[in-house]
Formats: sequence, structure tokens, C-alpha cells
Amino acid sequence: MTALKKLKNKIDKNLHICVGLDTDTAKIPRHLLRSADPVLEFNKIIIENTYEFTSAYKINFAFYEKLGAKGFEYLSQTRKLIPPDTLAIADAKRGDIGNTSQMYAKAVFDELKFDAVTLSPYMGFDSIQPFLAYKDKLNFILVLTSNKGAEDFEKTKLEDGKFLYQKVLEKIKEWNTEENCGIVYGATNSEELKKDILLFDDLPVLLPGVGAQGGNLEELTKQFISNNRKNFLINISRALLYLNSTPKFGYAVRNYILSQSEKIRQIIEQKL
Amino acid sequence: MTALKKLKNKIDKNLHICVGLDTDTAKIPRHLLRSADPVLEFNKIIIENTYEFTSAYKINFAFYEKLGAKGFEYLSQTRKLIPPDTLAIADAKRGDIGNTSQMYAKAVFDELKFDAVTLSPYMGFDSIQPFLAYKDKLNFILVLTSNKGAEDFEKTKLEDGKFLYQKVLEKIKEWNTEENCGIVYGATNSEELKKDILLFDDLPVLLPGVGAQGGNLEELTKQFISNNRKNFLINISRALLYLNSTPKFGYAVRNYILSQSEKIRQIIEQKL
Repeated sequence: MTALKKLKNKIDKNLHICVGLDTDTAKIPRHLLRSADPVLEFNKIIIENTYEFTSAYKINFAFYEKLGAKGFEYLSQTRKLIPPDTLAIADAKRGDIGNTSQMYAKAVFDELKFDAVTLSPYMGFDSIQPFLAYKDKLNFILVLTSNKGAEDFEKTKLEDGKFLYQKVLEKIKEWNTEENCGIVYGATNSEELKKDILLFDDLPVLLPGVGAQGGNLEELTKQFISNNRKNFLINISRALLYLNSTPKFGYAVRNYILSQSEKIRQIIEQKL
Repeated sequence: MTALKKLKNKIDKNLHICVGLDTDTAKIPRHLLRSADPVLEFNKIIIENTYEFTSAYKINFAFYEKLGAKGFEYLSQTRKLIPPDTLAIADAKRGDIGNTSQMYAKAVFDELKFDAVTLSPYMGFDSIQPFLAYKDKLNFILVLTSNKGAEDFEKTKLEDGKFLYQKVLEKIKEWNTEENCGIVYGATNSEELKKDILLFDDLPVLLPGVGAQGGNLEELTKQFISNNRKNFLINISRALLYLNSTPKFGYAVRNYILSQSEKIRQIIEQKL
């Protein structure tokens, strides 16, 4: 099954939440530190308690790389914990010259067997192309990010009056001949989204920035649904992972994602 | 010793070559495949035969990540093979929101103990800042790259008539309050370099793209030296690593880097 089909199957069930596994050993419940592999144990409990309400898991590579070789093993094992019907996204923001990007693509798709990846567009088409050669995968390319630094370059005005990030979006639509592109669009840019949403066409949109960074899940959902866009994924990381630090955190996580998922479902059903 | 000081010590000896360890198991001499750790064995021989003529080693993470957990181990072991007086650059092109970039910085500087890193600027200041907090390190930020895709966004004209990459360069100079920034500038952009070189000030410049990609070592050296710029590093990867596939490849590599190093030295001495 292609990655896009996996995503669409979930979206058909009104599942739009992506759980970000930004697992930080300094923040996980203390009792887990006594287990042999705290990171894996935590991720396992998070996945068990969220997968019914989840369309994708996004593994943030930085949180694993900082643990060295052991972290790489955790990353690989965590990927295997993700149920096969659920999209596994490598959040790695890769991008380099062609022969190097090809190696990164091999790492993420062949070695680690992810369904999807996040990519940085700065270096242009040939830095993205080796990933696009994997026709059954999904490549979420940064368009407009959720952080303050988005002002520095992404929101720079070009000669033709558009913003740089809008040019990136246009290019991605050109590159999408195999329907294996998606975009990353920061949930904190609610004003920009009102206009930009009309330009997304059918591209899958990954929306980080809800919760800790200030994006609003209900507003986002309303904007997408009222514009007849169903291909969106709202990422939740910190707000979900660390809401409870007792041995019952799995139960708390389950209740939280259930409530968020219900909010989305209600907005969609009211529209129908 | 700070990373900048390490680099300056080498430059004072007219050493300007950076050896890129883009080690590809499909390309290394066949006889090495019989050893227990072909990648490490190859890197060891390359380093032994180049370090006298080298100011830095750049480890291209992609080539190691594609080997999985074992690759991470190779990466860590290769870093340890680099002599302490020689700059070790993590060529990783990282860049993400602040809390994630902080994890990448920990991975590269604390866990792997590199002296320097390459970074992608697309997401702006707060994606770079966690790296800049390491005052003794060097952060080479992408300005203009050596690949064809540089046309797509880096060479886009902004409303003020400048190119995007020139705005990136300006911002890096603002961010460089601790003297721990450098830039990546593709050696293939010889026309642009004629003007841009005047804007580099004293920033260390890492120049990839010589050899396989078409950049010219002698022309580059002349341009820098004739403009009184000494803080430049010319990266050589494929043209050096794979020039000989016999058991005597170390000897061939040594002769090649010696000749390239001599070319640079002669240009500098003619100028003096």
C-alpha cells in the first residue's frame, strides 16, 4: 500500500491527529527510568493508548540522535512499534546535494522503513529528487514553519510580491508528478492560512505547532473542513506526551487524544 | 582551544584543504571488504595519509546513517580517529524549531564531540541559536550551495533586488556575535564569488564542489588570496577518496593531497 493510501484510509475514518514522538528522557514519568529501555517502554505505552485515534506517528530524529548509538537503536525499534496501517513519518528535515540526499533517502526508507519523511527545501529540486524517486512514500517538504524564525527567510518578500514560502509551495506542486509530496505548514500561522489554504490543492498538509507553540486544533479543523480540504494532519507532541507523570499516564494520554479526536469528528459531522 | 583557533592554527601553516569523508562501501577498494570494519579501516588509511596536509575533516552523516546502528558506531569511531589539532566538522545540514535544534546540537557537540557542524538556514534564527550557544564551536551555515538546485530558491531575487542567499549571509553576520559562525559557499559559483567575496568579512568559508562537481581549486585559492581573505577551506571528497582502488590507495591519496596542498602553498607564496 502506498503511503498516501494509508493516510487516506485514516482520513476516511475522520482521523486527523499525528502523534509526535519527541521522547525526552528528562520529561518521561520517573518510574520508567527503572526499566531497561525507558524510551521504548514510554513509546510503547503512548502508541498503545493512541493508535485507535491516530492517523500517523512522527518520530523526531533529534531526540534519538542525542542518545548516540543507543538512540539509533531506539529509533529503529520505535518505528517497528508503529502499526502497519498507520503512517510512520521520519521527522528529520533532511536536504543535501543529490548524491548525499540519496543516502539520506536510503537511511530513512530502505534501512529504517519509514513511510514518510520531512525535508528542508533550501537547496532546491535536486536535493529533494532522490526522495521523490521513492514513488510509494510521502515527502512532507517545509513550506511555512511554526517558529518565530519563519519571519527571517520564509516570510521574505520576493521580487514578484510573493513570499519565499509561497514560491516553495508552487515548486512543490510542480514536483508532485507522482503524488508523493506533502507540505509542512506551521499551525501558528492562522492569518496566512486563510489565504494559503486555497493554494494547497490536494497536497497532504502536516500541521505542527498546536499546543505548546500556540496553534489551535479546533480552529485549524474548521478552516480545513470549511474549505473542503480533508488531507490534513494535526501534530500533537509535548501537550500529549507529558500531560501526566504518574504510572497511569497512558490512561491520561488516551483520554486526551480521545477528546481531541472527538472535537475533530464533531466539526466534520456538523459540516456534513 | 576553540574551533576557530584550531582552524586558524592550520591556516597559519597555509593548510586550506578539508577532506570530506563521504565513505561509500560501494566505492572503497574491494580488498577492504574482507576486513572486520571496512568503513573504519578505509577512513583510518585516508586520515593517516592526509592529516599533514589537512586543516579539517568533514564527516558526511548521510553516508553513515544509511548503514543503520552500525553506521552510527562508524561515525562515532571515525570522529575519534581525527587528530585533536584538526577541525572535525559534522556535515549534517541540521535545522529545526528551537527545542529540536537543541537536541541536534547536543547530539553533534556533546555526544559526538565534533568541533563544527553544517546547518540549513531555512527556518531562521531560532533554528540556529541553540548551536550558537556553544561558543567554542563553529557553525557553518548554508549560504549558496554547489548544486543545480541553488537556482530554485537560494538565487531567487527578493523585493530589494538582492538574492535570498545574500540576505542569509547578512543575517549570519548579525548572528555572529560570538565569532562562532562560518558559511558554506559552493565552489561552482565562480561568477557570483567575485562580488560576494567582498561581503564575507572574516567569516570562515567552507567551499564544497571542487572536483566531481566542477569547482577549481587553483582559481578559488587565487580569488581568496588576491582579496586578502585567508579563512577559507576547500573541501575535497570523491576526487580524493576514490582515485585508486588497489591496496596501495593510501599512497595515491597522499600524493594527490600533497600536490593539491602544494598548489595552494605556491599561490599564497607568490602573493607574499
